[in-house]
Order: sequence, then C-alpha cells, then structure tokens
Amino acid sequence: MAAMPQLLHPKAIAVVGASQRGGRGANVIANLTDCGFAGDIFAVNPRYAEILGRRCFPSVGGLPPSVECIVVAVAADAACEVLEEAFARGIRAAIVLSAGFGEGGHGQARGARLRALAERGMCICGPNCFGLISLKSSTAAFSGPLMRPLRAGPVALVSQSGGLGAQVFAPLTTDRALGFSYFVSCGNQLGATIEDYIEYFLDDPDVTVIATIVEALQNPQKLARLAPAAHARRKSLVLFQAGRSSAGQQLAQSHTGALVDDSDIMAAFLRRHGIVQVATHDELVETVELFAMAPRDDTIGREAIVISGSGGGAAVAADVLEDAGTALAPLQASTRERIESVLPEFGSVTNPIDATGSMYDDPALLQKLFDAILAEPGRPVIAASVSARPIGNAHMHGFAATMAEVARASGRTIVAYQYSPLGGPLDQEIVQTLHAAGVPFLLGISNAMRALKYLGARRDAWARAGRSMAVPTPSRAAAVTQWDFLAARRLLSDAGVAVVETGVARSADEAADLLRRFGAPVALKGDAPGLLHKSDIGCVRLDCRDEDAVRRAYAVIVANMRKAGFGGNKVLVQPMVSGVAEVHAGIIDDRLFGPAICVGLGGVFIEILDDTVTEMAPLSREDAMGMIAALKAARILAGARGRARGDVEALASLLVALSAFAAAHAGAFRALDLNPIIVRPAGEGVVAVDIAVEPIANDAPGAAASRAS
Amino acid sequence: MAAMPQLLHPKAIAVVGASQRGGRGANVIANLTDCGFAGDIFAVNPRYAEILGRRCFPSVGGLPPSVECIVVAVAADAACEVLEEAFARGIRAAIVLSAGFGEGGHGQARGARLRALAERGMCICGPNCFGLISLKSSTAAFSGPLMRPLRAGPVALVSQSGGLGAQVFAPLTTDRALGFSYFVSCGNQLGATIEDYIEYFLDDPDVTVIATIVEALQNPQKLARLAPAAHARRKSLVLFQAGRSSAGQQLAQSHTGALVDDSDIMAAFLRRHGIVQVATHDELVETVELFAMAPRDDTIGREAIVISGSGGGAAVAADVLEDAGTALAPLQASTRERIESVLPEFGSVTNPIDATGSMYDDPALLQKLFDAILAEPGRPVIAASVSARPIGNAHMHGFAATMAEVARASGRTIVAYQYSPLGGPLDQEIVQTLHAAGVPFLLGISNAMRALKYLGARRDAWARAGRSMAVPTPSRAAAVTQWDFLAARRLLSDAGVAVVETGVARSADEAADLLRRFGAPVALKGDAPGLLHKSDIGCVRLDCRDEDAVRRAYAVIVANMRKAGFGGNKVLVQPMVSGVAEVHAGIIDDRLFGPAICVGLGGVFIEILDDTVTEMAPLSREDAMGMIAALKAARILAGARGRARGDVEALASLLVALSAFAAAHAGAFRALDLNPIIVRPAGEGVVAVDIAVEPIANDAPGAAASRAS
Repeated sequence: MAAMPQLLHPKAIAVVGASQRGGRGANVIANLTDCGFAGDIFAVNPRYAEILGRRCFPSVGGLPPSVECIVVAVAADAACEVLEEAFARGIRAAIVLSAGFGEGGHGQARGARLRALAERGMCICGPNCFGLISLKSSTAAFSGPLMRPLRAGPVALVSQSGGLGAQVFAPLTTDRALGFSYFVSCGNQLGATIEDYIEYFLDDPDVTVIATIVEALQNPQKLARLAPAAHARRKSLVLFQAGRSSAGQQLAQSHTGALVDDSDIMAAFLRRHGIVQVATHDELVETVELFAMAPRDDTIGREAIVISGSGGGAAVAADVLEDAGTALAPLQASTRERIESVLPEFGSVTNPIDATGSMYDDPALLQKLFDAILAEPGRPVIAASVSARPIGNAHMHGFAATMAEVARASGRTIVAYQYSPLGGPLDQEIVQTLHAAGVPFLLGISNAMRALKYLGARRDAWARAGRSMAVPTPSRAAAVTQWDFLAARRLLSDAGVAVVETGVARSADEAADLLRRFGAPVALKGDAPGLLHKSDIGCVRLDCRDEDAVRRAYAVIVANMRKAGFGGNKVLVQPMVSGVAEVHAGIIDDRLFGPAICVGLGGVFIEILDDTVTEMAPLSREDAMGMIAALKAARILAGARGRARGDVEALASLLVALSAFAAAHAGAFRALDLNPIIVRPAGEGVVAVDIAVEPIANDAPGAAASRAS
Repeated sequence: MAAMPQLLHPKAIAVVGASQRGGRGANVIANLTDCGFAGDIFAVNPRYAEILGRRCFPSVGGLPPSVECIVVAVAADAACEVLEEAFARGIRAAIVLSAGFGEGGHGQARGARLRALAERGMCICGPNCFGLISLKSSTAAFSGPLMRPLRAGPVALVSQSGGLGAQVFAPLTTDRALGFSYFVSCGNQLGATIEDYIEYFLDDPDVTVIATIVEALQNPQKLARLAPAAHARRKSLVLFQAGRSSAGQQLAQSHTGALVDDSDIMAAFLRRHGIVQVATHDELVETVELFAMAPRDDTIGREAIVISGSGGGAAVAADVLEDAGTALAPLQASTRERIESVLPEFGSVTNPIDATGSMYDDPALLQKLFDAILAEPGRPVIAASVSARPIGNAHMHGFAATMAEVARASGRTIVAYQYSPLGGPLDQEIVQTLHAAGVPFLLGISNAMRALKYLGARRDAWARAGRSMAVPTPSRAAAVTQWDFLAARRLLSDAGVAVVETGVARSADEAADLLRRFGAPVALKGDAPGLLHKSDIGCVRLDCRDEDAVRRAYAVIVANMRKAGFGGNKVLVQPMVSGVAEVHAGIIDDRLFGPAICVGLGGVFIEILDDTVTEMAPLSREDAMGMIAALKAARILAGARGRARGDVEALASLLVALSAFAAAHAGAFRALDLNPIIVRPAGEGVVAVDIAVEPIANDAPGAAASRAS
C-alpha cells in the first residue's frame, strides 16, 4: 500500500460529514485537536462554515491540496461518492467510519465500489471502523472516547473490532503507562488489510510489538511472507481471534472436515509462521505488556520460577501453570538450601516458592532470594507477585526497587505480576519503577502465567527466523468435481503414499477372481460417485475368507448401494491388511490458508475422541514426527503396555508425502481423507485402505464473513 | 462450635502481643478502632501501659471479665501458653495470627496443644491467618490493610489464605459496593474449620451467599450434612480450591488411582452436594457478585441470551460461552423479526445479538429489544454488555437505568457485564443503579460468561434440596492388608458385581482340567501377593485354545512370576469373554470424602486417553447412567458407526452395585479396580475379568497438608 504514510501520517486531514451537533465526525476533530495534531484540520459539510473552530468546506472538491487523508463519517451511499471524488482530486488515503458495505449481506455494491478504489491505489482504512491513532504524528483520527495523555512507544495494534481494540489500548495506555506507536481500528478491511498495516509497521524501527485482533484474515499468504522479517528483526507478532466458534460452524463438511474447523487451520497457520496466538482478550493485554517490556531475549528458557508472597498464591500459581502447560523449573539442591537459609520456617522452597509476606518487608532478604534463583541454569523466566493496589502497599515500593535493580544488573527476564486484576488504579510509582528496568507488570495470575508460556513461542519463532517459513503459494490446480477411487489411488501412489492394492469387480465372478489373485481374506467395498460413508449403509464387507463369502458380499453390497440410491455394480476388492493400530490422515485445502494436513487415531475413535493434530503443508520429517508425538494416541503407536510398536517412521513418511501431494494438487479438491491407514509393526510400513475425496462444491464458501464494530 | 458468637461478635476484645512499634497486633487495634467496634478494646504486653490509646495489660490473666475473645500476635511458643491461660480464665474465643503450628513439618507439638484447646471448647480462628471481619458488629479483628467504608450485606467469605480472601473481599467491597456480613481468614483450621463457619452462617438470615477459598477441607462429611439446609433456604454455596495440582500429586498410586487424583474426588463430592465449585479466583469474584445480586430464581433456565454493543464482543461472547459449555438460547423467528425491526441493518439478530453501539444511545430501542427478548420461553438469563469506565460513558447512565427498569418490572435474571475487567475504577452511579434493581455487574467477558454457567448449578442444587443428598458416613471396616483375587471375587459377586468364573491351577495338569471344565478358549493369569501389572511382566496368556497351549502358558507364567521375584505356582484360569467394548470401573476410598466410583474406557486407552468420570458412592441408577453418558466413549458404548450397542443398562447396574459394595467396605482398602470389564451386546450383560485391590498402606497418607497464608 503505497499511500500508507498518507493514511498514518497525513500532512493535513479533512473530516467529511462532521457536524456542529456532535457525532462521530465531530469526535474525530475534537480528538485530533486535543491530541495536538500539527497539520491542518478541515471539515466538509455544506451546512456549516466552521466546526469546532475548523474551516468547513461544502464539498471534497474544494479542499486545499495539502489534504492527504479524508475521514468519512457520512452514510454509506454518500460515502462512495465522496471517496470517488476525493480520489479524483488526488487524495490517496481515507478512513471510512460508516458501515453498510456488505456487512450482513447489505450494501455489497457499495463494498465493490470501495474495493475498486483500493485497487486503483487508494489506501482505505475501514469501512465500519473507529479510525486510527498514530501517536508519533499525533494523528488521533479516531471517533471513540480517548484517555489522555497518549504515549508513543513500542506497540502497534490493529483490530478489526474498534471496541475490542480500545479495550487493549486504553488499559495499557493508562494504568500500565505503556506506549503505542499505532492503534488502527481497521474495520472490514475492504481496502487496507491487517497484513498491509503489519508490512508498514515492520519498517518502523520504533515498533517492536505488533498485536492484532482478527475475525478473519484477508491475505494470510502475505502474512506468511512478512513473518520471517519480523522474526529476524526480533519483533513480536501476537494475534487474538474473535469468533472462533461461529467461524468453526462455517465448515465441517467432509468426515475429516468435521474434525478440523478453520480455526484449527488458522491456528496451524499461525504456529507455522511463528505468530503467537493467544486464547483470550485478557491474555492479549498481558502478552502485549510482557512482549513490549521484557528484554528481547532469544535465549530464554522454557521454564518458569515463581516467587509468591503468599502460600495460597503459590498454590494457585502451580495450578495455572499446569493448566497453561508451562513447566516449573525444578530447583537445584544448592539453590533450595540458599533459599531455605533466608526464608522464615513456614515458607516453602519448592517452586513456586512461598517466600511469605516477609519478602515484601526486607529488601536484603529479597536480594538474597534473587541471587540464589539467578544462579539456576537454563535462563528460566522469573516471576514475582507484587501488589500495586492503592492501599497497603507502602512496603511494595522498596520491593519494586529491588526487583528493578536485580533486573538491571542481571539482564534477565524478570516479571512482576499482581495476583488479581481487580482492585482499582495501580500505583504508578511501582509500575514505572519496574518498567524503567524492563520488568513487565502483569495483572491477574491466570493471564500472567499464560502470557509466560507465549515467551517460549516467541523465542522459537525468532530462532527459526533464519530458516524460511514462508510457503510459496501452491499453484492452484483445476478443480476436479468427481474423484474416482482408483484415480486417486494412482495419484497418491505416484506421490509415495501407499494405498492398498485394489481391484474392481463388476460381477460376483470378477470378485471371486480377485479373491484368487489376492489370496484370502479380502475386503469388498461399494464404489459409486458421491458415496462417502460406505459402512453406514452396509456397503463394506470385511474379512471374506472364501469364494462363497465373496459372492455373498458382492450381492449384498450391490443391493445396498441400490437401496441407498447410488446404484451401479462397481465393487472394489482389496486384500485385508492388519497392523498394530489404525490412524487417519487427511488434507484440508483451505482457500485462504492453503493446504493443511491432519492426522489422528483411526476408525470409530476419530469422531468420538477427537484426537487430531493439524499442521500446514508442506511438512518436514521433523514436523511430521512432531504431529504424531502430539497425538494422545502417540503412546499407543509407540507400543504402550506391551503392544507392538507401530511403524511411526513410515507414518511420518506418509505424512510428508501427503503434504507434498497436497501442495501439488492445491485447488483440485476441498478435502482428501485416508481412513483408515493401517500402521504395521515397526519396520513393516503403513498402508492406507480407503480414500475419500470431497470435491470443491459449486457453491464454494467465500471468505469467512468479515465483520467489525 | 458453641463459642462461635464470642469469636464473631465479642463484647470486648484483647490483642495479645500488640506493640507501640506497629506490627500485626497494632494493625488489629487500628482496624477495630477505625471500623467502629463498639465494645472495649484492650492490649496485652508487659512492656506498655497503653497502645494506640487502648489500655494495655501485662498478661491475659489480668484482663477484665468482659473480654470474650483474644487476638494472639505473639510467636508460636508463647501463643500456646497465652491460649491456655486465656482458656483457664474462661475466654472461649481466640484468633491466632501466628504461624508455627505444624506448617511444613515445624511445630507439630504446638499444633497438638492448640487442637487440644479446641477440643475442650475453645473456638479458635487460625493459626497462621489474618483474622476476621464481622461487619454487623464492626469487629474488624483483622491484621491486613482495610479499605473503608465497609458495607454489611449478604456475603460471607471464609478463606484459608488471607491474601487470596482479601482479593475477593476488597474489589467487591470497593468497586462493586457489595456488602459482606463476614470475611474470615481461617488459616490452618486447627480449631474452627470452614465447615464450622458455614454452620454458623446458615442460621444468619442476612447471609445468602457463602463463599470459600479452600486448600483442603477438614470435615467434608459435616459439609455434606449442612448443604441440604443451605439449599432449602436458597443460600448459595460456592467454593474455589487453591492447589489442585500439588494436591493431585499426593495421590495417584494404584492403576485406577493414577487417573483420579483427590481433586477429582473433591470435585465429585462438591457436585454431589450441590456446592458450586468455580475453576479460578476470578470466576469466584464474579460468581459471588452474580449470586449475591441476582434474584434467587429457582426456575431460571439453562440457556443464555447475550446482547452485545459490538460485533466483536458478540463473537467473543459466543466463543467463551461455547468454551464454558453454556448454551445460547436459539431465538424464535418472531423474536428475531421484532429485533430486526429495531436494530440498524448492520446489526446481527442471532444470539449473541450484536445490537451495535446504537443501543447505548437510544433507551427506547433498548426497551423494545428487551421486550422482544423477555417474550422468549424458558426463562433464559439475559446478559448485556455495559461499560462503567470513567470516560466515554455518559450514555451508559440512561442504558443502565433502562436495564434496571426492565429487571424490576420483569423480575427476571438480567446481568450486566463489562467486556474487559481492566480500565480503572467503575462509575459508581452505573453500578448502584443496576444493583438497586438486582442486576449484577460482572467484570470481564470470560469470567462473566463462566459465572452464568454456575447459575444452573445453583438452581439444580436448590431443586434437589428436598431429596437427601447427605450420605451417612459409611461404617469404616477393618483394613485388609492383603487381598486375594478369589476372596475379592466372592465378595463382589455376593454384592451383585459379576466377575468372570475363575479356577485356580497349581500345576499344568490342574490348568488342563480347568480348560476341560470351562471349554476353550481360556485365559491364564499369574496370581501372587502384590502382583499388580501382570501383563507387563508376561504373566497373562489369553486365548489358549487347547491343552497344549494351556500347559505351555502355565509354564511360562510361573517362570515369569519367578523371574519378577513374585514366585509361587498359583495361576488363575478363566473362560475368555468377548463383547463389544471394554471399560474399567473402580473404587477410590478417600479417607476424608468417602468412597468414590470411577468408570472409563478400558484397556490401553485408560491411561492414554484419560476418559474417566468420577462420582461419590452410593450411586442411584440415574447417577450411574449419567456417568456413562458423560464419557467421551459413551458413543462407542451406544453403538456408534454401525457397532453393536453395548449393555449400558447392565454397566449402570454394575456401577450401582459397586457403589453399594464401596460403602459397605469403606476402610477395608484404598482402591479397587475392575479392569477390564467386558461389555456385551445390549441385553447380554457385563462381566469383570480382572480385579486389582490396593490395600491401605502402613504409611497411609494423613490429611492433605494444610497450609494458609
């Protein structure tokens, strides 16, 4: 987006639709004025000559040429005309506050006009947004209420929902005194997308944390291309998705798809590209504070040491860390002895450490405690409970000063957290003493401990920065509306995915011939266009051991196909394969994110136990082994409780080959499912027994509905 | 506890160990004074004549007879003497702030002295606590910082951890202006237990919500006896457990026990007795606010309707409700039409309703919206997003007034929530307008939506109040240190728990005889004292089909027993049983909570997939069917994907019989595990194939370590 600078740092700005009677346009003028915007501010409204002391023009056409950006606060119909007029006038940036450009099915045509302008080079923020705040140029082109003073700093925030974004920006700006460079309420992203803003922020040296609140990404492949640069520059990318559940309902069609909704694919995509996805809004706030304030340490360990001023707090810390999956560093015996020598006898020297309330009273004790802990190997993050409540915290000032001193002297990641997020405004002296030394101040033990987990994810993303994570968008193949088992089998076999030998019988005689060819026992399966859940309608007969059984099975299957309305006389005959376990693996070819691979326990357990792991294609061998290890069923495959160990290596090879196949055939189908895949004992391989392909429907769903507010 | 009134409402009080140099004792005197305690306040300290203007006595012996309660702030050693002297002097209530009575293994003897006093009738709060605040008598015998003014009201809070308790009491008292009758920091409960306080609060008509923060319950059977009275009086019981994870590590021994830690048993116990257990501290705060302010409606439905002022907020509401397991009421077509007619076109009329920011601007629109929603059947709870932040909320006053009006007129449960818990002090006019009409004001969308879920749990507990839920403590049987398979089989069979027919072979010949008696195939299993995981050491041979196989199996098993150090020549022979599924079921006989029953998927899946449900014994048939339905594997048992349906009814009967057996044999063993249990097709029954009994160890663990701070 070439005109991004004009949007974020315009020389002069005009607000179209501002009114003397207040409203959103007037709010923008007031905010620009109050925050000290240095350029000219104009209004556009044929009814007035001035608004809030700013010169008012009857139309966009009469604006001075210095105006680089317009804020549009008129109804959607008029907005299109205003934008087109401004574009003709050479204005290349606009913020469209109005709604009515396709949300909920209304105003699609207006949306198309807006998109057309964007394609011609207009950098449009919105529509259906609150505007933006660009702090370095004091461009508070924002229609919502604003707390002041605003502080410029390391965070850039882009939120599809202005309301949700404000609830990250406001509390961090005020109570936490954290600085932002940008807060963009990007609305429906019909013009500039979240990816466009991220691209711009990557080159802003003041920005170290880029946080996003997303309902649907518009251009994830661009995000994939940008991520490695962010990691290389040690910038943090963090994302919160609003609307996981409703988005999830939009998919779920094929029998693999039923397990993997697009939230899983989005999560896999973000994981692949090192973008830290947080689970809740509250986690986003604490993670932004943590990433912005903590040292950008790419050698930090995966474990945590927690120091609590209360036994109950230590117990809860252990609970929430376990829930979050963050490991507590086991303390060395020497460290425990050193701690024991400084703590009162009713404290506890396991981790989390219950240092009792006395740690707040005695800075010397605290210093000794930290000295002992800093000697632990592995660079664990160290978190200590602090209260910055307005009452009863006199002794906390000394505590905070000691923590700050320790952080400064050690250069380590040391984090302060307040047990409960509630309880009124924070003592700013405490917060700022800590911040000045690079000690984040996190609110609420649950979210604080969960934020710690994300430090490891950030470190991993940075570590991988050297390795290219961006996947070239696979060339989109032609959609195939009808997939034949044998054709699919041939393609997969060519790609190195073993599918069991299969013959076609069109009569009981042919089925009997195939029994002789393969040897007993064999399986018979009906095959007809559109026939997916064969076993549900009696079109699968397993373990047929003699000619009689095969002939009977053939007759039954053909009859059942007819009964179910599929017809035909085509029955597949396969040798029976046995192994130590059954798994399934599949491809979901997502229109936006690209092909993803999932793997899970097979058979009846798939749907019931929902033990499925999803990652983006292509997969390295290491990725594939990691997916298998992440399954709950991993221990079954590895030979738990006296079972034979399955050929996990061959399963990994199959996943790698399947992922290459997925990339090569992207666009050819919506989903492909191998179920079951028989896993044989170690060294004997794996073989897929059935293939189901879900073709791309004619009414292929568009991008997930975009919504903002 | 007869002397509870003297503890909570003493006529006069003395603080032992108060000092002119400040400290905890002096804090108590200051808090009592500041909060307007009406009775006499004395100090005890041989060094001073007065402290903070209060008369100081050299010893407890000289205190005036009006003193009913002493607060002990001296070190643990001296504390014992002070308490004994006070008891001799006729004082029957004490608050022991000091630590050193057995925490972390130190001071066990002092703890015993304290317990002895409690047994003689002294009502002791603590030790290792912050004291208590009894608001109706302004008894702020509390050593921590206190915000004022304190408000008397419907909540009683007892917390083992003073620090964690204060972080419920303080934010609700201040920002939420919620009234408390009591806040007790009960410490280690060596004297009065949490159950003793609850008993007292049940009879206080001003208390409607009893909230507890617990690390370990001391007397759960008493709690079980109290709960029905609480439900009958429509009082809410709500509990948060700190230290789930470490507590969980204390158990996990037998191969059933490994899956069920005592947190699961505690959760089952609380569920059984209708005590609402919340998962986090933050949930506790919001649930107390909700239970205290909302109408005590025992007809409220299980579903929710959410009205959001932002599309992003509506999406997040859907996500967190789905995570919490709270159902969204589907809106009737007529309701949707009525809503559509009042909302702007870019709103959304599915539930959660995105009513857009315009709902805050127009009270008439809001009234119409509520009118439409109130017409929905099923009495769903209605939650609407409100902001009480200090800025930008001018229009929120009218919104809150309309909500209050609707709540008053309808008598329905209507809840206000603020999306983020952060962002500074709350506008008290908004909070109090809502509170006056019985509209709770909840902070944070995640915790608000999770609190809504607990309304249903409270309603259910109240509904069951007529039915006795209290389980008579089972008579404790004598511990059996060594359980023999055949003896256990006989006892279980007598109790109606079917275990497969079993013969004993002490030679290959005898094993062959048993094959002839049972018919092929048979299973052979080594049997020796202490031999638990037989299959892991090669002491199980299944599916032996002829005499030769049986003789070989016998020889191998005896050899493997010898190799593993068990020895003996005893091998059990059983007919092979087949069915449609394998499950396991077991008894955990918890010393405090009583016997619990668990059931789960059998075989290798037990440990790996952790699909186990636990409930307290005894079980009704309905309870047992509910447990089976709660398994992820329920669909497998019910015949998913063309499988034969298992005899679920027979499994339920087995669980009921097992639970009766558990009650009858409580105290005889620590755990008993039936694994596998073969589930046959519907109508054909279930049969247990193996029994493992974990005897009560000589070093039986004591009560979970008690800790407070």
